Amino acid sequence: MKAKKESIFESSKGEKTLIGAIDADVLKYTVGDDPVLDLRIAEYDAVGSAAHATMLARMRVNPAILTKDELKGVIAALADVVRDVRAGTFTITAEDQDCHLAIERFLTSRLGDTGKRIHTCRSRNDQSATALRLYMRSELLAAADEIAGLAKALVAFGKRNRALPMVGRTHLQPAMPSSVGVWATAYAEEYLDTLADIVRGAIDYVNRCPLGSAASYGVPLPIDRELVSRLLGFASPIHNVLAAGNSRGKTESVVIAALAQAMITSSRLAQDLILFSMPEFGYFSLPREFCTGSSIMPQKYNPDVCELIRSKAARVAALSSAATTIMVGMPGGYNRDLQDTKSLVVEAFDTTRSTLRILARLIGGLEAHPDRLRAAFADPGVFATDRALELVAGGMPFRDAYHSVRENLESLRGMDPDEAISRKTHLGAPFGLDFDLYGQMIANARRDIAARTRRINAAFSRLLGMPFGARTQSGAV
Amino acid sequence: MKAKKESIFESSKGEKTLIGAIDADVLKYTVGDDPVLDLRIAEYDAVGSAAHATMLARMRVNPAILTKDELKGVIAALADVVRDVRAGTFTITAEDQDCHLAIERFLTSRLGDTGKRIHTCRSRNDQSATALRLYMRSELLAAADEIAGLAKALVAFGKRNRALPMVGRTHLQPAMPSSVGVWATAYAEEYLDTLADIVRGAIDYVNRCPLGSAASYGVPLPIDRELVSRLLGFASPIHNVLAAGNSRGKTESVVIAALAQAMITSSRLAQDLILFSMPEFGYFSLPREFCTGSSIMPQKYNPDVCELIRSKAARVAALSSAATTIMVGMPGGYNRDLQDTKSLVVEAFDTTRSTLRILARLIGGLEAHPDRLRAAFADPGVFATDRALELVAGGMPFRDAYHSVRENLESLRGMDPDEAISRKTHLGAPFGLDFDLYGQMIANARRDIAARTRRINAAFSRLLGMPFGARTQSGAV
Amino acid sequence: MKAKKESIFESSKGEKTLIGAIDADVLKYTVGDDPVLDLRIAEYDAVGSAAHATMLARMRVNPAILTKDELKGVIAALADVVRDVRAGTFTITAEDQDCHLAIERFLTSRLGDTGKRIHTCRSRNDQSATALRLYMRSELLAAADEIAGLAKALVAFGKRNRALPMVGRTHLQPAMPSSVGVWATAYAEEYLDTLADIVRGAIDYVNRCPLGSAASYGVPLPIDRELVSRLLGFASPIHNVLAAGNSRGKTESVVIAALAQAMITSSRLAQDLILFSMPEFGYFSLPREFCTGSSIMPQKYNPDVCELIRSKAARVAALSSAATTIMVGMPGGYNRDLQDTKSLVVEAFDTTRSTLRILARLIGGLEAHPDRLRAAFADPGVFATDRALELVAGGMPFRDAYHSVRENLESLRGMDPDEAISRKTHLGAPFGLDFDLYGQMIANARRDIAARTRRINAAFSRLLGMPFGARTQSGAV
Amino acid sequence: MKAKKESIFESSKGEKTLIGAIDADVLKYTVGDDPVLDLRIAEYDAVGSAAHATMLARMRVNPAILTKDELKGVIAALADVVRDVRAGTFTITAEDQDCHLAIERFLTSRLGDTGKRIHTCRSRNDQSATALRLYMRSELLAAADEIAGLAKALVAFGKRNRALPMVGRTHLQPAMPSSVGVWATAYAEEYLDTLADIVRGAIDYVNRCPLGSAASYGVPLPIDRELVSRLLGFASPIHNVLAAGNSRGKTESVVIAALAQAMITSSRLAQDLILFSMPEFGYFSLPREFCTGSSIMPQKYNPDVCELIRSKAARVAALSSAATTIMVGMPGGYNRDLQDTKSLVVEAFDTTRSTLRILARLIGGLEAHPDRLRAAFADPGVFATDRALELVAGGMPFRDAYHSVRENLESLRGMDPDEAISRKTHLGAPFGLDFDLYGQMIANARRDIAARTRRINAAFSRLLGMPFGARTQSGAV
Repeated sequence: MKAKKESIFESSKGEKTLIGAIDADVLKYTVGDDPVLDLRIAEYDAVGSAAHATMLARMRVNPAILTKDELKGVIAALADVVRDVRAGTFTITAEDQDCHLAIERFLTSRLGDTGKRIHTCRSRNDQSATALRLYMRSELLAAADEIAGLAKALVAFGKRNRALPMVGRTHLQPAMPSSVGVWATAYAEEYLDTLADIVRGAIDYVNRCPLGSAASYGVPLPIDRELVSRLLGFASPIHNVLAAGNSRGKTESVVIAALAQAMITSSRLAQDLILFSMPEFGYFSLPREFCTGSSIMPQKYNPDVCELIRSKAARVAALSSAATTIMVGMPGGYNRDLQDTKSLVVEAFDTTRSTLRILARLIGGLEAHPDRLRAAFADPGVFATDRALELVAGGMPFRDAYHSVRENLESLRGMDPDEAISRKTHLGAPFGLDFDLYGQMIANARRDIAARTRRINAAFSRLLGMPFGARTQSGAV
Repeated sequence: MKAKKESIFESSKGEKTLIGAIDADVLKYTVGDDPVLDLRIAEYDAVGSAAHATMLARMRVNPAILTKDELKGVIAALADVVRDVRAGTFTITAEDQDCHLAIERFLTSRLGDTGKRIHTCRSRNDQSATALRLYMRSELLAAADEIAGLAKALVAFGKRNRALPMVGRTHLQPAMPSSVGVWATAYAEEYLDTLADIVRGAIDYVNRCPLGSAASYGVPLPIDRELVSRLLGFASPIHNVLAAGNSRGKTESVVIAALAQAMITSSRLAQDLILFSMPEFGYFSLPREFCTGSSIMPQKYNPDVCELIRSKAARVAALSSAATTIMVGMPGGYNRDLQDTKSLVVEAFDTTRSTLRILARLIGGLEAHPDRLRAAFADPGVFATDRALELVAGGMPFRDAYHSVRENLESLRGMDPDEAISRKTHLGAPFGLDFDLYGQMIANARRDIAARTRRINAAFSRLLGMPFGARTQSGAV
Repeated sequence: MKAKKESIFESSKGEKTLIGAIDADVLKYTVGDDPVLDLRIAEYDAVGSAAHATMLARMRVNPAILTKDELKGVIAALADVVRDVRAGTFTITAEDQDCHLAIERFLTSRLGDTGKRIHTCRSRNDQSATALRLYMRSELLAAADEIAGLAKALVAFGKRNRALPMVGRTHLQPAMPSSVGVWATAYAEEYLDTLADIVRGAIDYVNRCPLGSAASYGVPLPIDRELVSRLLGFASPIHNVLAAGNSRGKTESVVIAALAQAMITSSRLAQDLILFSMPEFGYFSLPREFCTGSSIMPQKYNPDVCELIRSKAARVAALSSAATTIMVGMPGGYNRDLQDTKSLVVEAFDTTRSTLRILARLIGGLEAHPDRLRAAFADPGVFATDRALELVAGGMPFRDAYHSVRENLESLRGMDPDEAISRKTHLGAPFGLDFDLYGQMIANARRDIAARTRRINAAFSRLLGMPFGARTQSGAV
Repeated sequence: MKAKKESIFESSKGEKTLIGAIDADVLKYTVGDDPVLDLRIAEYDAVGSAAHATMLARMRVNPAILTKDELKGVIAALADVVRDVRAGTFTITAEDQDCHLAIERFLTSRLGDTGKRIHTCRSRNDQSATALRLYMRSELLAAADEIAGLAKALVAFGKRNRALPMVGRTHLQPAMPSSVGVWATAYAEEYLDTLADIVRGAIDYVNRCPLGSAASYGVPLPIDRELVSRLLGFASPIHNVLAAGNSRGKTESVVIAALAQAMITSSRLAQDLILFSMPEFGYFSLPREFCTGSSIMPQKYNPDVCELIRSKAARVAALSSAATTIMVGMPGGYNRDLQDTKSLVVEAFDTTRSTLRILARLIGGLEAHPDRLRAAFADPGVFATDRALELVAGGMPFRDAYHSVRENLESLRGMDPDEAISRKTHLGAPFGLDFDLYGQMIANARRDIAARTRRINAAFSRLLGMPFGARTQSGAV
C-alpha cells in the first residue's frame, strides 16, 4: 500500500494549523515516543474509526456525511491499515504526531474529500480514548489468560508435590509443618483472586464506549452513540460526555493498579524462590537456563530472573503512582498531561505480561528436593504448636498447653513431618486442598476469557469485513 | 464492666512469654498506635471470636473444647466487649499490645480456664486478618453509601442547573459550549463508576474468610472453616491456608487503591471548584461556612476545604504506595511488616469518608451564577466547532469546514450559548442527559448496600445474641 | 500560667472573622491534628515571635510599633509559652486551630493591645514557615547525631569482629570470602555518607529565614529581614518574598527525602539481620529483648523490630511521595494543601529518629557466632575467584583463569576462610579497613553537630532572656 | 573500526558460561533495554577501563598483569571505543548484554590475551558502578548548568518587568499587590537553591570511586584504589568495599531525588503559566510556537508544553519512588534488581534536562501584558492589607486595623497598584529585589560548573591520550 503523502494540516492559505508552526524541539518534547508506542494502538484506532464512519453513514442528515460507497472505501482503507500494522509496514512520522493523525492522513491521501469527512463529530480526544480502551481491553484479556496459565503451572507443581513436607514460616522463622502443595497453590489461589476481582473489575471498567463525546462536550448533530458502542463490542456507552473525557487517565490508572496486584504477587513468589533456592535451604532449584553467571566468579548461578521480577514489581507500582500523581488535582476536561498516561499503561502491560509468561515457564521447570525439604524439620520447635493442639484435644486449655510445650521443646525432636502434615485435613490445609476446584476455576476463567475474545474478534471482523484475530503477544518478551 | 487484670502471658514459672521480656522502647516501637487504632477493630474481633468459639463448641473432639454452657459464657462476655467498645469504656493497654490480646485477657479474667480455650486452633494471624476484613467490609459499605450520597448531591445540583450554559474547556482553554448539568453529572457518573467497579470489586475481594488458617498452615484438628465463614456472613472461606495468610496486606492494598480512586475524583472536582470560584470566573460560590479567612488579609475568603481535598488525595495515593512498597519482595507467610498496613487502611478510610461527607454537604450548598457563566461566552472562539459542524451538516468535508471557520472566527461573536447547547441532544450531551437513569443508579446502589448491611447485622446479632447495628461513622469527621 | 480566654477573632461588631463562621465539621476537617502536632512547633513559634517583636520594636516608624517596655512584656510572655510547652501545660484548642493563633490569643489575653500588635508585618504564612524551619533544623541536627551514634555502634561491632570471616554474597548466593568487619562498617559508612551529603544538605536548605515575607508579597513598612534572620541563627534570609512562600512544602519534601535515605539504609541492614539470624544461617543473634513471641507457636522468637524497620522505611518513602504529589502542579503562592506537609514531616522525623535509636541499641547487643560464620564456607565455590586471581598473579590471563577454576571447583574444598580474608589487604578490604578513620569521621560529625546546636541555643537564650536547650528526643520512642 | 566478532564467553570446552545457556526469552527479559541505554554509558566505561588498566600495569606483581606496551594497546583501543561511541558506530548486541561485555569483547578481539587480562581484579559490579557514577557526574554538571540557564532567563524576564504590578495570590485568590519581577525571580531563586543544595549535594555524593571493590569483597592482590580514583577525577575512593557495592541504586536514588526537586519547581512554574495565560487572566502569552492546535476546535492554542511539564514532573517523582521501592528491604550486596535503577536514572536525566532547556526557551519568549496585569487590580480587596499596615504605622494595633479595614473594603477602590508596590522596598519585596545578586549567583554557579567540567575533561584526556570533551546534550530533546 503506497499513498502519496500530503499534509492535511494546511489551510487553503497554506498555513500549517495543527503542528506546522511548532518549533522542532517543542515537537520532540510533546510528541515523545508516540510514533513508536502508537504502533500498538493503530489497529484499534482503525477499528474505532470504522465504527465511527459506519455511524456517520447512517446518521440522518441531508446530504449524508458519507454515502454507502464512500463508507465502503473508508472501511476498505481502514482494513488496509490493520493489515499494514500487523505486517509491520505502517509508519507514523514525528510530523504525524500519533496514529490518529497518521490514519487520517492516510485516508485523506487515498480517498481525498471522503477522508476529510471521517473526523466529523469526533475529536482526537474521544477517538484516542476509544482506541486506548480497545487496546486495554484486549491486553487485559490476554493478561488474564496469562495469569490463568501461571496459576495452572503452580497448581500442577503443587499437585505433583502435594504430600511433600515443607517448613511453614512466619517472620521467616520456622513455624509449623506445611507442604509444597500448600506453598504452590497459595500463590495459584492469590493469582486467581486477582484475576477474578481485580483484573475482571478493570475489564468491566474499560468496557464502556467514550466515542461521540468529541472534545468532552458532545456535538450539535444527531450522532448515535449506542450504535458505535455496540459495533465495537462495548457493554454500553459512557453516558455523560464529560465523564467520557474525564475517564481518560483514570481508566489507565485503574488498569495499572490491577496489573500491579499481579506483579506484587509475582514479586513475593520470586522472593520465595530466591530464598528457598539458596544453598542454605536447597528446597528448590530453578531451571539452569533461567540463571546467569558472573563475570568474575566462576562458580556462580544467579537467580537474575527472580530478582528482576522484584524490581519490575517496584516499577509497575511506580507506574501506578505516576498515573495517580498526574491525576491528583488535575482540572476537569482534557489536559495534555493525560497523554503521558499512555506510555505508563503500555509499559505496565509489557512488563506484567512478560513477567507472567516467564514465571509460568520457570515454574514449569522448577524442581523440588525432598531430602532438603525434610531435613529442614530437624529443629523440633516447628512441631510445638501441633503438640500443643494434641494436648488441647485431650482436654487441656490452649494457653496451658502452650506453656507446657514451651517448656519441653526438646521432647519434640524426631517427630515425623510427613505424619504431621497428614493430620491437617481440614479445608485448605495440606491434606485438605481441593485440586479439582482449582482446575475448574482455571478452566472456567479461561473459557470466559476465550468467549469474550471471540465476541470481540467477531464484532471487529464484521466491522472491517476481514478476519480479525487478537494479537497473541504484546511487544515485549 | 470491671475485670481483675491478670496477665495471660505468664507461664507456670512466671516467665512472661509473649511480651514480658521485651524492652520498653522495643514495646513502644513495635506496638505503635495499635492500642488506639484497635478500638475500631475490637468489636469485629469480638464477633470473629464468637464465630470461632461457636465452631469450637461444635467440633467433634472428645471432650469438647467448649461445652454449651461455656460457649454461652464466652458469647455473653464477647457481647459485653462489643457494648463496652461502643460505649467507649473498653481499653487496650500497651501491655495488651492490641485488641486481640486485650479481649483474650478480658475473657480469661472473667471466665478463667474457659477463656484460655478460646485461642485453640487459631493464631493471632488469622484472628487479626478476620477482624480486619470484617472492619474493612463494614467501612467499604459505609464508604460506598457515602459515594452514592455525594453522587446524589451532584445529580441534584446538575438537574437544577441542567439548562445553564457553561464554557466547556480542554487544556483549561475555552473549547465548546457545555452546561452546568454536564459538568456536575460528569462527576456524579465518575463516582458511580468507581462505586460499581472499584469499590464493589474491593468488597468482593474482602468478603472471604481467612479464619481457621491459623498461622497460615492450618491445624491438626477437624475445624469447620465453612461454618465460621457462614456465621460471619462471608461469601466463602479462602481455600488455601497460606493464601489466607498471604492475603494480609494485599487485601489492604486493594482496598486503599479503591478508596484512592474516589479521592482522585474528589481532588479533580475540588480543583474545578477552586478555579471556577476565583473572582476571575465567578461561576460558582462555595458556601461561606466552608471558607476560611486570613490572619493578615482582611478581605479573604479561602477555599481551604477544596485545597485540603487535593492534598488528602495525595496522601491517600501515598498510603496506597506505602502498602505496595511494603508488599513488594516480601517473603511469603506472615511478616510483621504487614501489621503496618493496618494503620494505612484506617487512615485511608477516615480520610476518604470524611472527604466524601464534606463534599456532599459542600455541593449541597454550592451556588451557580448564571450571569457570570453566560458572560464567559463573550469570546467567540468557543462556538467555532459548532459552526464547523453546521457547515458539515450542509455538506462540507469536516477539514474544510475547520479551516473555513478558523479564518472567520470574528463572525461567531454574539452567538447565543443557550441556543448552542440546546442543539446538543444526543445521549449524554447537555440536552441528552438522562437524570432518571442517574436517579435509578443511585437508588439501586443504596438499596444493594442497605441489603448487604442488613444481612451482616442480622448474622452478627444472631451470633452475639444481641442487636448489632453498623456504626454510622468512622472515627474522623 | 493562667490567662482569661477571650477570642481575638471577633471584630468590634462581634462578627467572628477568622473561624467563627465555620461549620464544626469543616473546622474538624481543616484543622485536623494541628492542635496536637503543633505542640512540637509551639516553642519554635514563640522564639520566632520573639525575634519578630524585637525587630518591630527597633523599626523606624513613629510612633514605634512596640515600645521597649512593651517588648519586654512580649518577650516575658513568650518565654512563659516556652516554659509551658516544655512543662506540658500549654494547650491548643480546636478553635485556636494551631499554635500560631493560640500564642497570639495568649499574648492578647495577657497584654491586651500590645498582643494585638505582634502580628504587624507578618502573616501566618511566614510565621508558620519560620517556626517549621526552626523545628526541622533542630530535628535534623538531632537525627544527624543519632545517625552518628548508630554508625558508632556499627563500627564498634565491626572492630570487635574485624577478623571474623563471613561469606560475602551477591544475588544472595555465596560469592567471595569477606568479614563481619566489612559487613558492619559498610553500613556505618553508608550512614556517614548520608549524614555528610544528604542530611547536611537538608540542614543548609532549611537554614534560611522566610520571616518578613508576610503572605509572600512583603509589606509596605521598613522591616529588617536581615535582623530577624540573624537573631534566629539562620545563615541568611531567603531573598525573594515569594520564594520564601513557595519554599513551604518543598522544604519539607527535601527534608523527608533526606530522612528516607537513612531509612532505606536501615531497612537493608534490617533485612540482613533477619536473614542472617534465621536458624539456617545463625551468623548473628539479636538481643532476646528485641524479639517477640507468638500467640500460637510456643517456640518462636521473631525479629519483629527488624521487620517493622522494613515497613517503616516503606512508610517514610511514601511520606516523601506524598509531599511530592502535593507539590506537583501546585500553583505558586501559599495554598492550604501545603499545611498537610507538616504532619508528613513530623511523622518522618518521629519514625526515622526512633528507628535510628532502636537500631543503635540493637546493634549494641548483637552477637556474632564464629562457628556458624566459618561453617558457611564449606561450599568451595566461594573461594573460586580468589584462586582465579592467584593464577592471574602467576601470569595467566584472567578469562583463562576464570575458565580453569570453573572446571575444577572441587579442588577448592577445605580452603581456610581466615587465610583467605587475610590476603585482602588493599584499602577498604577485610584487612584494609581504617577504623581510626571511621572514628575520626564520627567524632568530627558529632563535634560539628554539637557546635551548631550550641550556637542555636545561645541565640535563642539571648532572644528570650532564659536558658534554652534543645530537646533531646522527638515525640515518639 | 571493525573487529572480528568472537565470543569471550566460551570456555575451552566450548561451553558458553556467562550467557550461552540462557534461554532466549530469559535473555530478553534480563537484558531489557541495556543494549540501547548503555550507548550512553559506554564512553564512561571505556574511561573507567583505561584507569583500571593503568593501575594494573603499575601493580607490583611479577610478572606484571599488563606490560607498558600492552597498556598502550589497551588505551588506544579504548580511545577508539570512545570515538566510535561518539560517532554512533559502536554497537552492543543482545548477546553482549551490556556495554561492559561489549567492550571486553572488542578488546579481546583486537588484542587477544591482553584483552582477557583487563578484567583482572574487578567485577562487572564495580566496573558498572564506576561507569554509571562517571555518567551521572557528567549529567549532573550539565543539568546544573541548564538550571542556571533557566534561572538566568527568569531573572532577565523579571528584570524587564520589575516594576510591573501583578496581583499576588494565596489560595489562588487575590491577596496583595506584587510584581512580575517578584513572580519571575521567585522561581529563579528556587532553582538556584536547588542547584546549590540539592544538585551539588548529589554531585558530591556521586563523586566517589567504587572501582577495586570488585564484587563488593575486594581482591587478594595489591590494587591501588587511590590511584584509580585520582585518575578518574573522583574526590576519593569509597572506603569499604561493600559500601561501594551497596551504594549502587542508592546513588541513583539520591540523584533522581535531586532532579525531582528541579521538576517540582518546573511543574509549579508551568502551572502558573497555564493559569495566567488563560483568556480570563491574559497576564502572559506563551510563544506561539510552543502551543499546539486542536483536531476539532479551529480556534484553539493550547499550552501543551506546560501541561506535559506537569506530567513529566509526576513521572520523575515516580522514578524516584521506583528507585526507593527497589531499595527498601533489599538484602546487602549486589542484587540484580539494582540493574533496573539504571534505566530510571537515564530517563530522569533525559526528562529533566529536556524540560529545563525547553522552559528556558519558553521563558525567553514569554510576553507580559501590562494592561491585563493592571486591570486585575480592579477588585479593591487586594489593597486591604497594605491599608491596614498604614493604619498600624499611624499607631493602631494590627488586629484593630485589620477589623477596621475589613468593614470598609469599598473605600479602597481605585487605589494605584504601581504606587502600592513602590512602597514595598524591604529586602526581597517588589522594590527590594537585588538583581545584581542574582546575576552573581548565576555567574558563580556556572563558573564552578565549568571549572569542574574542565578538570574532568583534562583527567580523561590524559588517561586516554586523546582530547575528551563533555557531551553537550543528553539523548532526548
